[in-house]
Amino acid sequence: MPEQIAADSVGLVQPQTLQFDQPLSLRSGRVLPHYQLVIETYGELNAERSNAVLICHALSGHHHLAGYHSMDDKKPGWWDSAIGPGKVIDTNHFFVVGVNNLGGCHGSTGPQSINPETDLEYGPDFPIVTVRDWVQSQARLADRLGIQQWAAVVGGSLGGMQALHWSIDYPDRLRHCLMIASAAKLTAQNIAFNEVARQAISKDPAFHGGRYKDHATIPKQGLMLARMLGHITYLSDDSMREKFGRELRSGKLSYNYDADFEVESYLRYQGESFSGAFDANSYLLMTKALDYFDPSVDFDHDLVATLQGAKCGFLLVAFTTDWRFAPERSREVVDALIAAGKDVSYAEIESTHGHDAFLIPIPRYMDVFGRYMNRVAADIGLGAAKQGLS
Amino acid sequence: MPEQIAADSVGLVQPQTLQFDQPLSLRSGRVLPHYQLVIETYGELNAERSNAVLICHALSGHHHLAGYHSMDDKKPGWWDSAIGPGKVIDTNHFFVVGVNNLGGCHGSTGPQSINPETDLEYGPDFPIVTVRDWVQSQARLADRLGIQQWAAVVGGSLGGMQALHWSIDYPDRLRHCLMIASAAKLTAQNIAFNEVARQAISKDPAFHGGRYKDHATIPKQGLMLARMLGHITYLSDDSMREKFGRELRSGKLSYNYDADFEVESYLRYQGESFSGAFDANSYLLMTKALDYFDPSVDFDHDLVATLQGAKCGFLLVAFTTDWRFAPERSREVVDALIAAGKDVSYAEIESTHGHDAFLIPIPRYMDVFGRYMNRVAADIGLGAAKQGLS
Repeated sequence: MPEQIAADSVGLVQPQTLQFDQPLSLRSGRVLPHYQLVIETYGELNAERSNAVLICHALSGHHHLAGYHSMDDKKPGWWDSAIGPGKVIDTNHFFVVGVNNLGGCHGSTGPQSINPETDLEYGPDFPIVTVRDWVQSQARLADRLGIQQWAAVVGGSLGGMQALHWSIDYPDRLRHCLMIASAAKLTAQNIAFNEVARQAISKDPAFHGGRYKDHATIPKQGLMLARMLGHITYLSDDSMREKFGRELRSGKLSYNYDADFEVESYLRYQGESFSGAFDANSYLLMTKALDYFDPSVDFDHDLVATLQGAKCGFLLVAFTTDWRFAPERSREVVDALIAAGKDVSYAEIESTHGHDAFLIPIPRYMDVFGRYMNRVAADIGLGAAKQGLS
Repeated sequence: MPEQIAADSVGLVQPQTLQFDQPLSLRSGRVLPHYQLVIETYGELNAERSNAVLICHALSGHHHLAGYHSMDDKKPGWWDSAIGPGKVIDTNHFFVVGVNNLGGCHGSTGPQSINPETDLEYGPDFPIVTVRDWVQSQARLADRLGIQQWAAVVGGSLGGMQALHWSIDYPDRLRHCLMIASAAKLTAQNIAFNEVARQAISKDPAFHGGRYKDHATIPKQGLMLARMLGHITYLSDDSMREKFGRELRSGKLSYNYDADFEVESYLRYQGESFSGAFDANSYLLMTKALDYFDPSVDFDHDLVATLQGAKCGFLLVAFTTDWRFAPERSREVVDALIAAGKDVSYAEIESTHGHDAFLIPIPRYMDVFGRYMNRVAADIGLGAAKQGLS
């Protein structure tokens, strides 16, 4: 519980649910006849409707970016370190929008929603949605909010893929794309890790082909394994060494199969917490969206051609010890943007935190991010108001 | 099936089972009252008994190093590329010994053996054995074979840890230690991967606390997941890209949860094959032996002090894209050996193959390895006979 809410917090916030009745045609060929999106917003949309920033979430993220839902909340939204009055994404100046993506499990239409064709939960029948589908649904959201053009679309990891897809699909609808710790497509190794996670979930006897609710159970073991594995790949060898080393839980080896090392009990705890909090069908869907992402497929696998139509400015950020989305993957995008003649800035941030670094307020990262956001502010005529921050 | 056996193969070979009746006191404090070891040997022990080379196996390895058990065998022993007449470990000159370690599942005493105290299978009650215990059992094996001093003890990965422990525990009983793609201890990241594998196996409902045989089942899903995950860590991001890229199985995305990419079906196949072939309790035990390995614990965590008593020559080899046992881990050992004033050679081999590279006959690797084995041969007076090879 926050004893008192910090002055640079967005404070107590509430999500809103928006209903969309126009059918959404998905990349898979299937159609969502209607759907809802849960969002949160912070700050005020200005009269010109020019100061809106969309934040796209990663695998297990959602719309609750910053602040608290109640004074009983133990933790703020997942990107509270970056979003708030006076912070890098300054809610004194920007109107910030967070949205839970379709297929998720935090209120937007997904596997836990009722399928209008059957009047039962979709469960495993919920269509696989892609990054492009999400961006299309986010464009509809922009229409609803009266936002013709985002000042910026920002995302880390899977969120960065959405930001990039915005620049390709709706070049006139964003001024800036901030793609952090991301990639133009997954490598085979990343797909392989996702596949192990999917097998862990779908082969859990409690999964019941995705109909676990009908059996009043959840595939907890599978979700736990998926999260433990995910967690290893979000950290780095260095950060695990710094955080845990070979520290023993009880000072000596057990010579049995209990957790001997601190890192083991930490991972078990992380896995168990997650397994009670995230929907298995959503997890499978999110990993498929990651695997499937490759906008160059529509451009004969030519990334330069893929990005040729983009009109926004780009900031890419990568972190030295991120091996899930390594700096090389960001540099591929930067190189393609340069070859396509685009306006791109790139920062490679020294960090021991692995992929998780994108959520951590590392000083040089915050500095680069903040300076770029000042440029975004200047572009929409907020330069004077923001000068104090640079 | 080998249509005909190559001239540089050790040919058709047979394992032998040796019985040991002297109790073995384990690091855990437990005692094996008696035990058996399954071995294979190739080449001839010379009159001076000076030309013996011990090969220590890795996680899922065993005593069958080279050649074939029958003309129906589809594949030769696991290190056939390095062992045979005229090969790097030349059986025309050396007497090569392979042993299945205690706790394994290929014939030596382990979880599938009968516990003399209960007349039932040990199963999960088999004591956790450590690298030190293995080395002690291998020293008894040397006694039995009449080998006072090995010309060399050689191992990759977990096998390299055994080779290193030989140099610490029995400094007079080996002339050379060849430690390949290994480390002086696991990192937290490696322990974390092992813990995910153990959780996958032990939380599989078919595991039954390790008493799966009593339930006429095996924890196939858990073993499959453990092997899929292991496999990812044995390869490199580069090798997976070369081998699979983002190739699709059927040319297009399925938009369901089937395997879309080649890498997914490859891993599923690898996992399934392994799950029918390896004992779950042995797998758990082998991963604990890996986690527990840290000979410096007995020397106040000082690796230089740990290695001070060693008398043999050392060759360490690491591979550039091996991220499970990265070159840094080998260099830590090399640095400590230099600080301790030991005779050490080190080669870092360019390879895209990740950890698996140690099993692959990469030309520069084979060249370094072969030249070092020539030096081993020269040390025991086989110089003239081996000259043609260098």
